[in-house]
Amino acid sequence: MQEHDISTGRRITACVLIIGNEILSGRTQDTNLNHLAKTLGAWGIQVTEARTIPDIPETIITTVNEVRVRFDYVFTTGGIGPTHDDITAECIAEAFDTALVQSEDIAERIRVRPAPEDVMAARLRMARIPQGAELIDNPTGGPQGFRMDNVFVMAGIPLVMQAMLSSLEHVLERGDIVRSCSVTAHLGESQIADALGAIQRRYPSVDIGSYPFFRNDRYGTSLVLRGTDANVLLDAQEEVKKAITAAGVEPEDVTGVE
Amino acid sequence: MQEHDISTGRRITACVLIIGNEILSGRTQDTNLNHLAKTLGAWGIQVTEARTIPDIPETIITTVNEVRVRFDYVFTTGGIGPTHDDITAECIAEAFDTALVQSEDIAERIRVRPAPEDVMAARLRMARIPQGAELIDNPTGGPQGFRMDNVFVMAGIPLVMQAMLSSLEHVLERGDIVRSCSVTAHLGESQIADALGAIQRRYPSVDIGSYPFFRNDRYGTSLVLRGTDANVLLDAQEEVKKAITAAGVEPEDVTGVE
Repeated sequence: MQEHDISTGRRITACVLIIGNEILSGRTQDTNLNHLAKTLGAWGIQVTEARTIPDIPETIITTVNEVRVRFDYVFTTGGIGPTHDDITAECIAEAFDTALVQSEDIAERIRVRPAPEDVMAARLRMARIPQGAELIDNPTGGPQGFRMDNVFVMAGIPLVMQAMLSSLEHVLERGDIVRSCSVTAHLGESQIADALGAIQRRYPSVDIGSYPFFRNDRYGTSLVLRGTDANVLLDAQEEVKKAITAAGVEPEDVTGVE
Repeated sequence: MQEHDISTGRRITACVLIIGNEILSGRTQDTNLNHLAKTLGAWGIQVTEARTIPDIPETIITTVNEVRVRFDYVFTTGGIGPTHDDITAECIAEAFDTALVQSEDIAERIRVRPAPEDVMAARLRMARIPQGAELIDNPTGGPQGFRMDNVFVMAGIPLVMQAMLSSLEHVLERGDIVRSCSVTAHLGESQIADALGAIQRRYPSVDIGSYPFFRNDRYGTSLVLRGTDANVLLDAQEEVKKAITAAGVEPEDVTGVE
């Protein structure tokens, strides 16, 4: 039992906080984590933990304070609209022990579109941000996200979250990109477990994952190699291919390093 | 900003731990949380937090020890196969400060199917469980899950996890079931935010969620009401319908309590 630290160079980590009762009740299938993991990964930021938490102030505040010191970046999704259950901004302000203030920048954009007094008051809830926060661009024109120190607060609606995230492409610091390649073996995991373990020990900077599947009436295992050095990945992949051949089947679906 | 404790009767909580680098890298879209949330919810067990963590022993051990004292139940998925990256069993043993032992019960089942020595040795990795653990039935015949105190260790492959979970149906204690009903309004959230907030204040035992959407070129908001008392839910839903009508549109997709 050992940890493989696959980052040989500069490692930048992120924690994703999915805020929303609808995910925890099972009503909504989350897809934001997957999008964040892929996008940030391609930018050299490794999502190394994710938490899904309910719309409960104390939980949000405690969790934000716990993870913002442990990870380089924290990305939250959910709870920034105009209704009573949109409490992320006030929780972030409380986590940072700062005031929740009205951003005149956001308020101005909101006032452009006229509305009855009560509707305008609700809309202006979306202008409240923690003192000192910077705005995150929202190309969709919906609610505004913001950044407070290393915490990025974004919308829960996937398309809106994705638009906000893309506006951060040139804002975030980048570390080494974790790349991957894979190969499939149509045999049981146990048949190559021994050889795989030995390859893993010889390549401590590569993370070798074995993912069994059952598709089209056939058992198989996807072997995924991850690491920051493409050359080392290709060497390790070659060894995995040899191990598959030695176990009596042909390596299939061999992918190049991505 | 206030917390709505919607459990008026017996509350049983669960934390889901998704263990797996493949989810955090974005290679695999997790669906286990959603299935667990829905199934456990129907049994009166509320998933109130979920964490996705990497295949790193220290992280797994620390996380398990943190959550097993905070929630009534913990359900883990992933990492119980025969390869080097399957480290959940040894981590659970370490978390509980107990030995990892070979279950003769599991070993016997594994030995039924003959194999070369190295393949058998790999398979027998799946017979290792923490001392004192009880087996979880696996109707698919794959790797064996186990229960250690209030921690249930299950497979990561969705179909296998689902089979294991269904075998727990009559094992787990049950609390009040959180039920829900909903109604859709084709208007912007801000237009009913005020009225919704007032209804939420009048119904503290109901959790009212507002989820905006954009479908078929129309904006709208799904209003979801959750609580343990079906009568109270129906009363609150009636008020939400009135608020929608007062805002100038017809309530749509009104669902009964489920």
